[in-house]
Amino acid sequence: MTISQRRDRLRERLVADDLDAMLVSDLVNVRYLSGFTGSNAALLIRAEDPTPVLATDGRYRTQAAQQAPDSELVIERACGPHLVARAAADGLSRVGFESHVVTVDMFSVLGKAAGDRTELVRASGTVEALREVKDAGEIALLRLACEAADAALHDLVERGGLRPGRTEKEVGRELEALMLDHGADGRSFETIVAAGPNSAIPHHRPTDAVLAAGDFVKIDFGALVCGYHSDMTRTFVLSQAAQWQLDLYELVAAAQRAGREALAPGVTLSDVDAASRQIIADAGYAENFGHGLGHGVGLQIHEAPGISASSAGTLLAGSAVTVEPGVYLPDRGGVRIEDTLVVGSDSHPNPDLLTRFPKELAIL
Amino acid sequence: MTISQRRDRLRERLVADDLDAMLVSDLVNVRYLSGFTGSNAALLIRAEDPTPVLATDGRYRTQAAQQAPDSELVIERACGPHLVARAAADGLSRVGFESHVVTVDMFSVLGKAAGDRTELVRASGTVEALREVKDAGEIALLRLACEAADAALHDLVERGGLRPGRTEKEVGRELEALMLDHGADGRSFETIVAAGPNSAIPHHRPTDAVLAAGDFVKIDFGALVCGYHSDMTRTFVLSQAAQWQLDLYELVAAAQRAGREALAPGVTLSDVDAASRQIIADAGYAENFGHGLGHGVGLQIHEAPGISASSAGTLLAGSAVTVEPGVYLPDRGGVRIEDTLVVGSDSHPNPDLLTRFPKELAIL
Repeated sequence: MTISQRRDRLRERLVADDLDAMLVSDLVNVRYLSGFTGSNAALLIRAEDPTPVLATDGRYRTQAAQQAPDSELVIERACGPHLVARAAADGLSRVGFESHVVTVDMFSVLGKAAGDRTELVRASGTVEALREVKDAGEIALLRLACEAADAALHDLVERGGLRPGRTEKEVGRELEALMLDHGADGRSFETIVAAGPNSAIPHHRPTDAVLAAGDFVKIDFGALVCGYHSDMTRTFVLSQAAQWQLDLYELVAAAQRAGREALAPGVTLSDVDAASRQIIADAGYAENFGHGLGHGVGLQIHEAPGISASSAGTLLAGSAVTVEPGVYLPDRGGVRIEDTLVVGSDSHPNPDLLTRFPKELAIL
Repeated sequence: MTISQRRDRLRERLVADDLDAMLVSDLVNVRYLSGFTGSNAALLIRAEDPTPVLATDGRYRTQAAQQAPDSELVIERACGPHLVARAAADGLSRVGFESHVVTVDMFSVLGKAAGDRTELVRASGTVEALREVKDAGEIALLRLACEAADAALHDLVERGGLRPGRTEKEVGRELEALMLDHGADGRSFETIVAAGPNSAIPHHRPTDAVLAAGDFVKIDFGALVCGYHSDMTRTFVLSQAAQWQLDLYELVAAAQRAGREALAPGVTLSDVDAASRQIIADAGYAENFGHGLGHGVGLQIHEAPGISASSAGTLLAGSAVTVEPGVYLPDRGGVRIEDTLVVGSDSHPNPDLLTRFPKELAIL
C-alpha cells in the first residue's frame, strides 16, 4: 500500500462518518499519512480531494518537500489553526479533529479559526485504527527492526557480553551499540537490563548493579528502523540455575507459548490475554503478573491494540503485536519472555514471528 | 530548594489564583514536583495540605515509593480522573488543570469525575513558569550535563574524530558514546552532525555523507544527566578555510557574543534576540537566520523562555537558556554557535557559561 492509499482509506472513513475533512494533529499520524517526520506539523485530509494539505514551519521547508512530495505544502507555524481556517474558508461544514490529541487550549484556538459555519467533530483514534493493520511496507520495516535486535543480542551472547562482573548499564550500552552495527537507526525505547533481584521489577532502568552468578538477567529492548519499533524480551541465567529458576522459566515460557498460539484474526483480545494468564494463575502466580499480555507495535512502541483482560475488540489480520507474560517475585527475581508477531489472515492463520532469537532457557 | 519547597511555591500560587488544588498531568511537571519519573502519573497539589497525592499504576508501585517518599501514593491506572474525583469528594470547589496538556477527550472524563460542585479551572503553564527559574540542585545537574558534552567533544577532536573520510553518522555515534563515557545517561536530543552543504540545513539528521576537506562541520548536541539537558553547537572547518568561511564564522561569533552579553535579569526577551540578530542583519544575512535566538533548557530540551523577536516577557534571574544564532547559505554551508548559560542576578548580573568548549574557529 502506498501512502496515498492510506489516505484513501481514511477518506472512505470520512465519507462514512459524514465528515468533509479531517485535521490530523498527531505527529505520528501525520507521518503515517504524508511521510513527513518534522516536529511541528498538521495535515488536512479532505473527503473530496485526494491532495492533502501539509502545514509546517520554515525550518522544514526543504524536508517537507522531499518527504511529502504529493502534499500541498503550507509554511505556517500555527499549523492546526491555519488548516482549520482554510477548511472554513473553503466552505467545509464538518471537520473531524483528534480529540484524544488536541488539548483544551488548542481546541479553543481551533474553534475560533473554524468560525460559526464550520463544526469541529470529535474523531479520536480514527487514524490509529487504520494504523492497527500493517501494510507490506510496514511489515518489512518491522522485520528489519526485529532482525537488528535479534542479531545484536546474538552477538552480545556470542562474545560473552552477559557474564558476572559486568554492570547492567554496560550490558545495555553494548547491546544498543550492537543494534546500530546491525543497521538500526537507534533503540526503540530505553533498554531494560535487570539482574538478580532487579529482574523482579517489570520496568527496571539499568543501574551500576553488577551481574552475579546465579542471577536472572532480564533484557527488554528493541531497535528502531525508519520509524518502526521492535520489541523483545529474553531472560537468561548466569552460571547455574536453581530449581525455582528453572520452574519459573518453564512456567512463563508455557504461558508465552499459549499466548502466541492464541493469536488469530477474529479472536477476542481479552481471550488472548486469558489464554496466557490462566497458565500463570493456575500455578498460583496471578498476583505476580501485574501487566497486560501485549500491545500493538509499529510507528509507536505502544499502539493499538492493547491485549489485556480489559481490552475490548478482536485481533485483526495483519496487526503487529507483542506477547509478553512475566512473573515477578519481589526481592528474588522475575522472568519475562516477549516476542513481536504479525497476526495471520483467515487463509494463513498462523502468526508470523518477527523476533526469532531462541526462547529455550540459556544458562550462560 | 527541595522538591517540597517547589510545591510550596506552587501552593502560594494556588492561593493567589483562588484555587483549592491543582491537578498536574504533564509528566515532566509531575517529576519536577514529586521526583517520580514513571510514564503514567498525575499529581494533586492542594493549597491547604503540604502532602501531595501521587497516582500511578501498578507497574510503578515500588519505584513511586522510592522516588516520591513524601507523597501519598495511590495505585490507580486512570490517574487524573481518580484525583479529580477525590478532590470533589473532599469538597474542593476550584481545581486547576493543565489546559495546555489535557486533551479534549480527557477533559470530558475529568469533568464527569468533578461532578456538579467542583469547577475545573484552566491553569496552563503554571508549573512551567515555576520551572523557568532553576534552583541550585537543577543548576548543578545542568552543569554536569554540559561538562559531559564539553568533555566528549574535546575527546572527539583530540583523537582526530573530525576528519575527512568519516561519515556524519560515524561522528555522531562516536560523540554520543563519548558522552556516556563522561557520565551522561544519554543524549539530550538527536545529535546533529552536518558537513559541507548539509551544514546549511538548520536541523539536519546525520547521514552517510562523507566529511571532506574544506567542509564546515556543524555539531549540535547535548547530554542528559538525571533528567537535565545540555545543548551546545560548535562549527568547525576541515583542513583549510576559505575566506567566505572565515568571514561567516566571525560574523556568527560576533552575533553570538552580543547575544550572550545581552543576557541579564529584567531584559526584554525580544531585545536579547535583537541584540544578536541585528549584527547578522547589518551584514545582509537577515534572511539566512530563520529561527529564534534561544530557548530555556532544563528537564526539557526546549522550555520557557523562548528568546525570539516575538517573545513576550523578560529574562528572569536564574533561568537557563541557550544563545544560538546561525547563518545558513543554501547549498554552500552554514555556521551556528550555541551555548547554554544561566542568567545572573541583580547582584551578580553576568551570566554563568555552562558550555565551556572554546568558540574560536578550529581548523582541523
